[in-house]
Amino acid sequence: MDNLNIYLDAKELPRYWYNVLPDLPSPLSPPLHPVTKKPISLDDVKPIFPVSLIEQEVSNTKEISIPEEVLEKYLLWRPTPLRRARNLEKFLDTPAHIYFKDESVSPPGSHKPNTAIPQAYYNKLEKTKKICTETGAGQWGSALAFACSQFGLECEVFMVRVSYNQKPYRKVMMQTWGARCVPSPSELTKVGREILAKDPDSPGSLGIAIGEAIERALEDESTKYALGSVLNHVVLHQTVIGLETKKQLELIGEKPDVIIGCVGGGSNFAGMALPFVRDKINGEEIDIYAVEPTSCPTITRGEYLYDFGDIAKSTPLLPMHTLGHSFIPPPVHAGGLRYHGMAPIVSKLVKENLITPISVFQLDTFEAGITWAKQQGFIPAPETTHAIYYAIKEAIKAKEEGKEKTIVFSYSGHGLVDMAAYEAYLSGQLQDYSLSEEDIKKALEELKDLPRP
Amino acid sequence: MDNLNIYLDAKELPRYWYNVLPDLPSPLSPPLHPVTKKPISLDDVKPIFPVSLIEQEVSNTKEISIPEEVLEKYLLWRPTPLRRARNLEKFLDTPAHIYFKDESVSPPGSHKPNTAIPQAYYNKLEKTKKICTETGAGQWGSALAFACSQFGLECEVFMVRVSYNQKPYRKVMMQTWGARCVPSPSELTKVGREILAKDPDSPGSLGIAIGEAIERALEDESTKYALGSVLNHVVLHQTVIGLETKKQLELIGEKPDVIIGCVGGGSNFAGMALPFVRDKINGEEIDIYAVEPTSCPTITRGEYLYDFGDIAKSTPLLPMHTLGHSFIPPPVHAGGLRYHGMAPIVSKLVKENLITPISVFQLDTFEAGITWAKQQGFIPAPETTHAIYYAIKEAIKAKEEGKEKTIVFSYSGHGLVDMAAYEAYLSGQLQDYSLSEEDIKKALEELKDLPRP
Repeated sequence: MDNLNIYLDAKELPRYWYNVLPDLPSPLSPPLHPVTKKPISLDDVKPIFPVSLIEQEVSNTKEISIPEEVLEKYLLWRPTPLRRARNLEKFLDTPAHIYFKDESVSPPGSHKPNTAIPQAYYNKLEKTKKICTETGAGQWGSALAFACSQFGLECEVFMVRVSYNQKPYRKVMMQTWGARCVPSPSELTKVGREILAKDPDSPGSLGIAIGEAIERALEDESTKYALGSVLNHVVLHQTVIGLETKKQLELIGEKPDVIIGCVGGGSNFAGMALPFVRDKINGEEIDIYAVEPTSCPTITRGEYLYDFGDIAKSTPLLPMHTLGHSFIPPPVHAGGLRYHGMAPIVSKLVKENLITPISVFQLDTFEAGITWAKQQGFIPAPETTHAIYYAIKEAIKAKEEGKEKTIVFSYSGHGLVDMAAYEAYLSGQLQDYSLSEEDIKKALEELKDLPRP
Repeated sequence: MDNLNIYLDAKELPRYWYNVLPDLPSPLSPPLHPVTKKPISLDDVKPIFPVSLIEQEVSNTKEISIPEEVLEKYLLWRPTPLRRARNLEKFLDTPAHIYFKDESVSPPGSHKPNTAIPQAYYNKLEKTKKICTETGAGQWGSALAFACSQFGLECEVFMVRVSYNQKPYRKVMMQTWGARCVPSPSELTKVGREILAKDPDSPGSLGIAIGEAIERALEDESTKYALGSVLNHVVLHQTVIGLETKKQLELIGEKPDVIIGCVGGGSNFAGMALPFVRDKINGEEIDIYAVEPTSCPTITRGEYLYDFGDIAKSTPLLPMHTLGHSFIPPPVHAGGLRYHGMAPIVSKLVKENLITPISVFQLDTFEAGITWAKQQGFIPAPETTHAIYYAIKEAIKAKEEGKEKTIVFSYSGHGLVDMAAYEAYLSGQLQDYSLSEEDIKKALEELKDLPRP
């Protein structure tokens, strides 16, 4: 009877996060102030982020200690299992070994609390009383709500109104953990009131919700803002995924040939990939694939430019692959992958050819999700099916080449709160999207007068 | 850094199920034919169940081997973790050690596949092509759908129409695993058509759905029926929960003082409790509590009688605690605990004072569920909150008595597909229910002419 689940003992929980910044072949261009376009200063961001996180954002220390209090909270669900997808291997009749790092076992069901917990911790340490954030489909909002409940912090989540109405379960999860979940645009902020004055039925957008959350954070000193992806410190915290995976593979004597993750803002992918990128920089041969939807092809077809994080142009300018801050992706169900930009760290690694971007069609990913559910039992999040699709593709390639490859991917979340997406797929209501060259050129026009990284 | 999660290696997966029948202080009375009221014969039930399961139903072997093919499927999510609720202990400031066996980690999110997998396996072995069943809220239907997908069997689930409409996520889960989910009453059966002729808007009931599923199973030899609780073979398969728990407690040198589970039909509770009942029969001192809702107080206030499993009186008569087959429990959200009867094995153990029945109010259980979510992170199923409520009560008692008790309970499922119940609780829409003596007396009148066990 083989071990299909590789567990780590609590004492094997990584004691540090891996910071890739000092290992990058060339340094990241600095974030720029949205108005002055000059590199931002600590004082610019201190009103919205705790100092410890700003320090992590620009740190040059390769290994950053995980505080004891964060480790204790991680232990609620970490180390997460690395599992072998033996049923899928048999189904595909492939010589490849397929492993997935199961981040779906956390309380909110995804990798998001890996950063929500330390963000809540550092805020608590610096006397924050309330954290505000935005959420689209609700994965990040629910993770932050959970994390705040663990540290006794208030949490206020601005949830894009159309999702608030369509996806009530995530909202109730946040409320169960004691958070306030507000449909955005709301009457609570100037940003929200202005939108509602023009359009009382506004469905909202992530850009508006970010604006509302930041406005609330600026209202008083004990309220801060938190972001669930893109930024360096978020990516840093997520490296616990890859660090554990490396230990688990060593335990069973496997060396990975292929690493795969889905990418939206980039944090789940980077969290898995960066410890292996480190090996690759040090000479190991590993193929690392970042898989995004064709409907929002940020790194496969966007350009590496300075851009804002939101449509309202209120965030600093970041050096990243982007489709333009006004780009509104088609309504695919992988809500977490519908973002116009990409983590600067991931963008940089793509530029440096250390990771390979791939884009896949929606219908193919759902087909892969159904295959997975029938073979492995578990129902994956629509985002996660992107990684599954590509893992299957690599496993088939390994069969064709007759190679016993070891394929490892990040199983970023389960799909139990996304069953409406499966229903739409199963009833034939979903479609594929791809953008024309012209669409993309047009979307990027708005960036032509901004500085270049 | 303490280990809060106690994992077992694949090779520690139990190789047998524990059959309590030969260890019972006195034998169970036999099931009776619904019409003749004589003990049923193999031939009576062969059209609806495979012979292997009927044999297990009446077996006198204490340890029944788990087939290799079932073990292989169990490995998709088993052995499940035993976890220590350290945060809750701290919150309650109790000297008690609180452990929970996490059955929520299975693909459908509950303990149900522990029996769905072997039931699908034995059916496959005996050439069944399709399994029909009924489901209320959908936990059992989704577990059987998953199990059938693992063995390449067709699966047809009659889902009570009101739940089918109100709880679409479970239906989509079944469809994702390839099952057909039919709102009941349906046009597919005589039973269904008759009901619909009288009332085209019938909300359906578990009794009607059972009737439809059995009718379909009788249509041809290669179609069988499956039940998700109550019966001896179901309880038998669930003992994998308690057998693993015993090994895990031994691993860390803990001896349980208190075992707790929620009870509806009885299978999750019995699965956890029976291996400890065995120890108790052999002289160990263990308190074992079966926790049910006050709204459906089958073992705390029902009587030990022969009764039908369904309102249509189509099932054999079973010796069990019951509130009468026509009893319709108030609409509490713990759908899995709304059953008029109780597993004959659990009923017998209550009669023999080997386990102690407890009933708890709905609002108390949701309050316990919220406390749990805030302390331990995970959101429990409404059924599971019954066990949590009582574990908290025992932990507080241990504090008052200054005793370092070891409390172990079955965490039967997560609540991620039940968030509507939490929403109703959080918005103050739920209420408590208790039945008057007269209600119960009246409900039991219909049984007065039936034989006594």
